[in-house]
Amino acid sequence: MRLGEFELIERLLKELPLPSKEVVVPAGDDTAVVEIGKGKYQLLTTDALVEGSHFKLKWKEVLEDLFFLLGKKLVNVCASDVASMGGIPKLALINLGTPKEIGEKCLIEIYRGIGKAAEELKISVIGGDTVKSKTLFFDMALIGESSGFMLRSCARPGDLVGVTGTFGDSRGGLELLSRGKISPKYLINRFLSPQARIREGKEALKLGVKCGTDVSDGLLFNIWTISASSRVRIDVEREKIPISQELIDTFGREKALEFALYGGEDYELVITFPEKLTAKLEELGFKVIGEVKKGSGVFLDGKKVKVSGYDHFKEEK
Amino acid sequence: MRLGEFELIERLLKELPLPSKEVVVPAGDDTAVVEIGKGKYQLLTTDALVEGSHFKLKWKEVLEDLFFLLGKKLVNVCASDVASMGGIPKLALINLGTPKEIGEKCLIEIYRGIGKAAEELKISVIGGDTVKSKTLFFDMALIGESSGFMLRSCARPGDLVGVTGTFGDSRGGLELLSRGKISPKYLINRFLSPQARIREGKEALKLGVKCGTDVSDGLLFNIWTISASSRVRIDVEREKIPISQELIDTFGREKALEFALYGGEDYELVITFPEKLTAKLEELGFKVIGEVKKGSGVFLDGKKVKVSGYDHFKEEK
Repeated sequence: MRLGEFELIERLLKELPLPSKEVVVPAGDDTAVVEIGKGKYQLLTTDALVEGSHFKLKWKEVLEDLFFLLGKKLVNVCASDVASMGGIPKLALINLGTPKEIGEKCLIEIYRGIGKAAEELKISVIGGDTVKSKTLFFDMALIGESSGFMLRSCARPGDLVGVTGTFGDSRGGLELLSRGKISPKYLINRFLSPQARIREGKEALKLGVKCGTDVSDGLLFNIWTISASSRVRIDVEREKIPISQELIDTFGREKALEFALYGGEDYELVITFPEKLTAKLEELGFKVIGEVKKGSGVFLDGKKVKVSGYDHFKEEK
Repeated sequence: MRLGEFELIERLLKELPLPSKEVVVPAGDDTAVVEIGKGKYQLLTTDALVEGSHFKLKWKEVLEDLFFLLGKKLVNVCASDVASMGGIPKLALINLGTPKEIGEKCLIEIYRGIGKAAEELKISVIGGDTVKSKTLFFDMALIGESSGFMLRSCARPGDLVGVTGTFGDSRGGLELLSRGKISPKYLINRFLSPQARIREGKEALKLGVKCGTDVSDGLLFNIWTISASSRVRIDVEREKIPISQELIDTFGREKALEFALYGGEDYELVITFPEKLTAKLEELGFKVIGEVKKGSGVFLDGKKVKVSGYDHFKEEK
């Protein structure tokens, strides 16, 4: 493919008619936003997990509950988009494309995972299509609710940059699985069993935070999406990026940092906010890793970062 | 696969938590129904088109605009579900899984088709995910609106059975394509370019019709879903089933009738309604093909029909 994923999507969107007036935020942010009543919004998103791109069938040989975990992951990946807008996930539709060789048992396992995560997040799964496909895929359309929303485009110079959780663990887990390893379990779970940060997103929105996204494509890349949409410069301090001891112990400090900066699929939140909210956001678990300035681009310890997108990392899997 | 598609879906649904109270109709009808305000409903559905199951890449050799037509078809297939409930389609999310070999040109063509149909049906496409997949697939989650809804489970003894359009054309078109033919164009178009019956569904609902579905899996099979959900017997008269002259001319009367009864993908509506509405529904284009009685099962000219599901026909493609 010649175009990068983001350019391609932009090109494809040109083929679509303009959305109707109740669509407050069209395609392009983590979710679309539709007004369904005064100050009442629906947040809509969709994500797919595809064999070969997001997981490999051979992992099943070392991980008995692979499909259960992937089912759970699908729900959390979608829910993470809703969380990054500050919303609560509510309704989901599923598509499941399966080769004949995949037995019913595996499908039931995927659904069990979806069901488990849906229960935990109080999501009603209200429909689905099951089709034959040579490649196993499953995807979900998720609808959330909120009384407001955080956008990538609302970072302002002077804001601080805050994140939840630790970074790079998921990429570490993927690396281990690719080598046929299933421990440390913590890293495997961070890759296969992420937890959408619903509470943190909701509470940040309630505190008045205007800008947020989730880290699906790599910390620096997703910070770059904020910087590009908001037309601001964002400075990140390497030292402040939260990295787990497990990741450092397993891969060494240098590799751990690389995973943290570029890895992807962390499903943690990144927000920007006025300094006065710092204490309250720290109470919620956010950690400050940088600041927003006038200008453009993402800077790591003062040095401009050349952001390579997700596509690059996807090829590596 | 051991279980039929419908049994499998029922089995999978058991893994999901119970839906929340605003879900008026859960998974199982043509769309789910969610109450979003007093007498205001959202209708939610999802459908997928998958290479190998729903279309073949080699058709592209004889049909230059194949991907454009498939894009249009996806929208209409989903919209047909909304139409069969009596609703108006409003918002859509897309997933697109593509092999590397499929060029950007083809993706843009799919999106152009989606865009064209979305424009015709006034649908806002508000999001989408694009992923790599060895098998080309694209699917859509569609959200419609209505102030009421028709259900499969609401047929009552004494009702008449009405349908829009003609049956079997789509199966005829598929048959021709499978033989490498692209004429008669009418039949090819009926397979690749169906038109969701939005107006007919909406007007039927407005007249007070309570029961409807769309014919995706074959006329008799979909009538059977009404009969099973409503716990009634449905009698159909062979002679009254609308069949196009093109289908008869191309395949002969006997084959045309077989396609009409079992073919699938017609995306026409089937409704049941009290006799007094006949004149008004006929004005809308509905034709009476049978009646609802006490009892169970589907009868063709008085003889009970053994209904084989969609799976059977899907294998033939």
